[in-house]
Amino acid sequence: MSEPVVPAPAERAGHAGLVPRLEAGGYREDEVRERRVWLEGVAGCALPQVGGAALPSEQMRGNIENPIGTVQVPLGVVGPLVVRGEHAQGTFYVPFATTEGALVRSYERGAVALSRAGGVECRVVVDANQVAPSFRFDDVAAAVAFCRWLPEVFTELKAEAEATTRHGRLLAVEPRPVGREVAVLFRYHTADAHGMNMIVKATERACHWLLARSPARGVQVFSGLESEKRASGALFAGGKGKKVIAGARLPARVTSAYLHASPADFVALWHQTVLGHLQSASLGYTGHAANGIAAMFIACGQDVANLANAAVAITHFELTDDGDLYASVTLPSLTVATIGGGTQLGTAAECLAMLGCTGPGRAPKLAEIIAATVLGGELSMGGSIASGEFVQAHETYGRNRPAPAAGGDEEPG
Amino acid sequence: MSEPVVPAPAERAGHAGLVPRLEAGGYREDEVRERRVWLEGVAGCALPQVGGAALPSEQMRGNIENPIGTVQVPLGVVGPLVVRGEHAQGTFYVPFATTEGALVRSYERGAVALSRAGGVECRVVVDANQVAPSFRFDDVAAAVAFCRWLPEVFTELKAEAEATTRHGRLLAVEPRPVGREVAVLFRYHTADAHGMNMIVKATERACHWLLARSPARGVQVFSGLESEKRASGALFAGGKGKKVIAGARLPARVTSAYLHASPADFVALWHQTVLGHLQSASLGYTGHAANGIAAMFIACGQDVANLANAAVAITHFELTDDGDLYASVTLPSLTVATIGGGTQLGTAAECLAMLGCTGPGRAPKLAEIIAATVLGGELSMGGSIASGEFVQAHETYGRNRPAPAAGGDEEPG
Amino acid sequence: MSEPVVPAPAERAGHAGLVPRLEAGGYREDEVRERRVWLEGVAGCALPQVGGAALPSEQMRGNIENPIGTVQVPLGVVGPLVVRGEHAQGTFYVPFATTEGALVRSYERGAVALSRAGGVECRVVVDANQVAPSFRFDDVAAAVAFCRWLPEVFTELKAEAEATTRHGRLLAVEPRPVGREVAVLFRYHTADAHGMNMIVKATERACHWLLARSPARGVQVFSGLESEKRASGALFAGGKGKKVIAGARLPARVTSAYLHASPADFVALWHQTVLGHLQSASLGYTGHAANGIAAMFIACGQDVANLANAAVAITHFELTDDGDLYASVTLPSLTVATIGGGTQLGTAAECLAMLGCTGPGRAPKLAEIIAATVLGGELSMGGSIASGEFVQAHETYGRNRPAPAAGGDEEPG
Amino acid sequence: MSEPVVPAPAERAGHAGLVPRLEAGGYREDEVRERRVWLEGVAGCALPQVGGAALPSEQMRGNIENPIGTVQVPLGVVGPLVVRGEHAQGTFYVPFATTEGALVRSYERGAVALSRAGGVECRVVVDANQVAPSFRFDDVAAAVAFCRWLPEVFTELKAEAEATTRHGRLLAVEPRPVGREVAVLFRYHTADAHGMNMIVKATERACHWLLARSPARGVQVFSGLESEKRASGALFAGGKGKKVIAGARLPARVTSAYLHASPADFVALWHQTVLGHLQSASLGYTGHAANGIAAMFIACGQDVANLANAAVAITHFELTDDGDLYASVTLPSLTVATIGGGTQLGTAAECLAMLGCTGPGRAPKLAEIIAATVLGGELSMGGSIASGEFVQAHETYGRNRPAPAAGGDEEPG
Repeated sequence: MSEPVVPAPAERAGHAGLVPRLEAGGYREDEVRERRVWLEGVAGCALPQVGGAALPSEQMRGNIENPIGTVQVPLGVVGPLVVRGEHAQGTFYVPFATTEGALVRSYERGAVALSRAGGVECRVVVDANQVAPSFRFDDVAAAVAFCRWLPEVFTELKAEAEATTRHGRLLAVEPRPVGREVAVLFRYHTADAHGMNMIVKATERACHWLLARSPARGVQVFSGLESEKRASGALFAGGKGKKVIAGARLPARVTSAYLHASPADFVALWHQTVLGHLQSASLGYTGHAANGIAAMFIACGQDVANLANAAVAITHFELTDDGDLYASVTLPSLTVATIGGGTQLGTAAECLAMLGCTGPGRAPKLAEIIAATVLGGELSMGGSIASGEFVQAHETYGRNRPAPAAGGDEEPG
Repeated sequence: MSEPVVPAPAERAGHAGLVPRLEAGGYREDEVRERRVWLEGVAGCALPQVGGAALPSEQMRGNIENPIGTVQVPLGVVGPLVVRGEHAQGTFYVPFATTEGALVRSYERGAVALSRAGGVECRVVVDANQVAPSFRFDDVAAAVAFCRWLPEVFTELKAEAEATTRHGRLLAVEPRPVGREVAVLFRYHTADAHGMNMIVKATERACHWLLARSPARGVQVFSGLESEKRASGALFAGGKGKKVIAGARLPARVTSAYLHASPADFVALWHQTVLGHLQSASLGYTGHAANGIAAMFIACGQDVANLANAAVAITHFELTDDGDLYASVTLPSLTVATIGGGTQLGTAAECLAMLGCTGPGRAPKLAEIIAATVLGGELSMGGSIASGEFVQAHETYGRNRPAPAAGGDEEPG
Repeated sequence: MSEPVVPAPAERAGHAGLVPRLEAGGYREDEVRERRVWLEGVAGCALPQVGGAALPSEQMRGNIENPIGTVQVPLGVVGPLVVRGEHAQGTFYVPFATTEGALVRSYERGAVALSRAGGVECRVVVDANQVAPSFRFDDVAAAVAFCRWLPEVFTELKAEAEATTRHGRLLAVEPRPVGREVAVLFRYHTADAHGMNMIVKATERACHWLLARSPARGVQVFSGLESEKRASGALFAGGKGKKVIAGARLPARVTSAYLHASPADFVALWHQTVLGHLQSASLGYTGHAANGIAAMFIACGQDVANLANAAVAITHFELTDDGDLYASVTLPSLTVATIGGGTQLGTAAECLAMLGCTGPGRAPKLAEIIAATVLGGELSMGGSIASGEFVQAHETYGRNRPAPAAGGDEEPG
Repeated sequence: MSEPVVPAPAERAGHAGLVPRLEAGGYREDEVRERRVWLEGVAGCALPQVGGAALPSEQMRGNIENPIGTVQVPLGVVGPLVVRGEHAQGTFYVPFATTEGALVRSYERGAVALSRAGGVECRVVVDANQVAPSFRFDDVAAAVAFCRWLPEVFTELKAEAEATTRHGRLLAVEPRPVGREVAVLFRYHTADAHGMNMIVKATERACHWLLARSPARGVQVFSGLESEKRASGALFAGGKGKKVIAGARLPARVTSAYLHASPADFVALWHQTVLGHLQSASLGYTGHAANGIAAMFIACGQDVANLANAAVAITHFELTDDGDLYASVTLPSLTVATIGGGTQLGTAAECLAMLGCTGPGRAPKLAEIIAATVLGGELSMGGSIASGEFVQAHETYGRNRPAPAAGGDEEPG
């Protein structure tokens, strides 16, 4: 940390100009190139690969500003994964965009083990999204009166909010007063969109309606209670995205052959490591759920920043009465979409197509597939730790050495 | 949720074969193509853009398995951002890989405001990474005796651990007993690498050394206490990556002109919204720090799954005695690297070069730039909410409409 | 910690006999005495004051086993406190059982300040108690089917549960599945009793009814989700006891005269110290709410162990538009009773009478008074810290020195 | 909540006078009586039992203000409890002040089971107390410079702090910057006192020394980071009181005979209920540790408000290789004292004597006994739930019915 700092060219030159605004709006190929060339000059670097992408620049409109090209992230595939959900049924090969060596191999191993055990049962138990504006009042009495009045006007409020959106449906409003402030949870069904912009807009209109009819002195459209892109204990109750559960029963012969550990080993591992989660005041318990979610989110054009909430989860390993392993993962806040956001963009659209998750009616299916895949990763990570192979696996795959043919192979081991 | 499920082709065909293992290891262009073509057949989809990437497939070795191509994420640029750190000094243009419309414009606005106010002061206050194996003992007495003995053998333990690595340095070991289990925090300096594989390997060797010299009955290399890719309260104490602080003073004329809110507005917003964070049992306080971190992590080849820990942060807005706004963000667990992982890959290497963060000695610089950029995003988000413009901004930029020339422009407003 | 351990007499003698069971059940004066004398012998100590209590031993039946006498805790009084609630209206003098010097003086000061400012506005916004049994199923599908079926049988379930109790009313059941387990929140109105035994009994009956009609393989009456006598993030949502809010507006002349700090000082203090709460991953924000709640709980025969949940709270100091201080405390889990438990016992009954909180219909009133009193303590503590007088106050009152006549006096301090 | 509110006499009369200050300071018997009589008049109630205590009023000086008498809490005894600690060794009978029926019987049952299994092993692993003032600086650079400078002046700082106290020893200072604020953990050894007043005073002096030598603009003696009387995730790391661990091995014959459940039943219970703790974002895992701690704290003159931190704990049930139950409880923040506070008062002194914990050198012993006792309660609660007897036990003991002779009896129940 103490070595001399050699400034980058931009630093030296003292440039501080704005990123150029361009005539046609900045999304034409030549404009993207012009901006990139400008940046190469200002920052003293060359950006050939950033400029070498297949993604047509005009497609970026609405998804980014000041575009200079694309970033390319390696894409691998995890599977086969047999899913027995309500929305996803069959065998899937799941796209993973990652640069972490051994990650695809690890998830693949888990997916194969799950598939050989008969597949993963998945259910979406909550499907909603929420925003929580905060209203200010003169005193506690006014704040609480507002809380009590709110249910009376739900029908009108719903009409107001839904007037702004074709797809959003206001499911419930729940006031949460603190002192003389009242945060109100507005919970919506957002169909297959992530829907944050949709519901913020709807909620803002509802807020104006409420401001005009109540003694509220003001409102902020966010209160923090919405837990958007934030880890919180409140996420477990559901309401921020899909709450999905994936579970599977794995007999000892499968866990031993594919994961190199017995059902009892998994349970012992869970038992011991939950202590570390408790001691660190972690939210929930996971092995490395964040890894799989991040890789699938990047591949499928999801809003990756939502990992902050989506990675709050509870993985569970337990024995059945027969001595099998029952493994599950509960994802209370899986914010996924199959329309809007980045889902229509080039490679994202292709990755969604790979899963049969293109367009309307597919977001719950995507949620089930992601949950099932995460479960595979939790199993593989658990097996690696319980069997003491963790370091070895990373030595093999993560260090630029030739990758062997084995892995989640039929030849155990 | 009740509409009929139309299975994707792979589902129909009942395919469940392994992803093909290929002779040369699977990273040659033709092998990647062969695997992709196989998948197109199995999944019944076309993947032209996945296959259209500029990234040479052989570069992916060690970063991914079962590669089929790349995902392309739109890349924009945020700046100018004036940083006054110990490692980063000067004006930067920061790469953002995202598909969330309005995000780059929002961060740009904050960056410009910060730069016009004189720039962002940054400091790295902790620089370490940790892993926390868990040892099992027969009883509490043995566990506690182990805890007390551990400091006595630190020198030997350090030699053992460091024998496995050229760059890692064991800084401290701290036992954390729970019942008869002892989780031990092994804290390392990992130079400019993220270093998780490095320190797990070192720690595993140290564990074997300890097992041979203590009555421990066994060990798991992870206990959960390490908080890797997980949100936890323990992160605030530091030790999982860089703890970085970025702060800036902004006079009213800057906040009003660029962010459309007064210093007092920002403080009032913070004051009110921290209540929602408390009520939701959030870890820390942030506006949308996860957005910027995710976008920079994807662009710069960082391990995106670390967002789960890196997004745990504390943003603070307060008034100075002169009535200026003092804004800061404290990121206790910013896990970043400039060597290893995905940092050398095509576009990631270019994005790091854009920041003058290529290779050894640059990880703290990258940490400072990211922290400074996050601060810009927090300010812009805060201004949007405080001024009531949040919805409007998303209407303008996030809906496939032409992006206007303004934004973080010199013409305020 | 290293000095030689001198064993107590009981240790030396190696006694290990059971506490004597006595013929008449053990609650007659002579039996209590006999047990105490036995203990004095076994433990080698004299217990004259334990035996010197005014509380008739027969009254203890149902509240304790193995009685040997009573503990006497000093009782002081805090007031006057003007409360403007829905249940509590008027001026109160509040009993505090504590041994912490300066505590009564501190709360008294806050109470007087609040009263001089016009009193405290109080509202009970949730009034319930909950228990959350956990059901086990064969797999995720069965667990989720159970969750979906539960609302259909609410009416029958309510009838079952309420068949066991005269006062309890089942308000709602909410399933919270994790993997193949389903914790179900049973939320009740328990009238003026704490009601934990009541609702556990009702819930156990409901569980049997559910077990007979569902594929559940078993049930545990507690899942941990109930947050009984435990601090949790889930408490903020309400449901474990009364959620009560107390708030007051204090002009600068009152805060300066009685609390020696300006409204702005209070807000600055809150602003700065919320950072420490965030950094320590605290649940909520409080100055020393636990102090007042503990003292009132002991005095009023409440279940003191509930302090673990009841002390989770959010204190807030903010400025009004006029520059006054608006102070509030939100207690989301104030578990109080005016019937049952220890409320009828000697001094507890007298303390409740002191507040006009004897018997049925008075629990919400008690909740409002406690909340208002806590607010006084938060203000006084805040004033002490903000003015730098904290140490001095403890020097004066907490060290066996003569207590001066001043304090929350009319002659501002 | 809607019934008419009948105001208590004080409310009716509109009294709002201060509690009388009396000539001799207010602790003479006649003054206490005068104050009580005044209150009886003002509040319209009779307080004979409050006035009937054995505790000499002059002893209350320094422990309470505005005394009007005492509260009497039923005192029972739990034992025999065999403890094998480093400070506590032998058989103990533990005083419980509680009004919760069945509680003593429950803890007694656990204590007997533990004793029959050979007793409880206990260790104090951290023994400290902390306060965390917060310093304000002009900017991040100044704040971080202060953090780096602090270790250099530790020796002088220690001398300053310790100049105010005979018993306190400053062990460490640890800066925790957030933005431009720096909370500094001052960690002390406080011998056998709780020591909060002691270390606040010492720290205040140290703060003045630091203020004079640094560019800090100001300081608040509390930042929230100290976690005093507050539940926080930071408590697990130790430093706020004694961190104590109690563990015991119980063979199946003991658990079956005394607790009516097998070792496997306990582990299954733990396994399932930890899910509820995770889902509710609880801090740690406990059955009802708060119950025992509260009862012992009240009996032994401890500061009961510290239950808020002391009840944050981790109970663990696991199987040994031989199929025995290994049960433990880890209490990271057990704030106990054997000198100062309420420990010298009448019945408290007698209760401490009962445990051989009178005076200097005994606080760690008290901590071990409390931890061992809590473990008994966790076992008994666990057995009740696992065996389905929970409701039945409360029916028997908690409802004013004759208590049977059995319980933690030799004739297994």
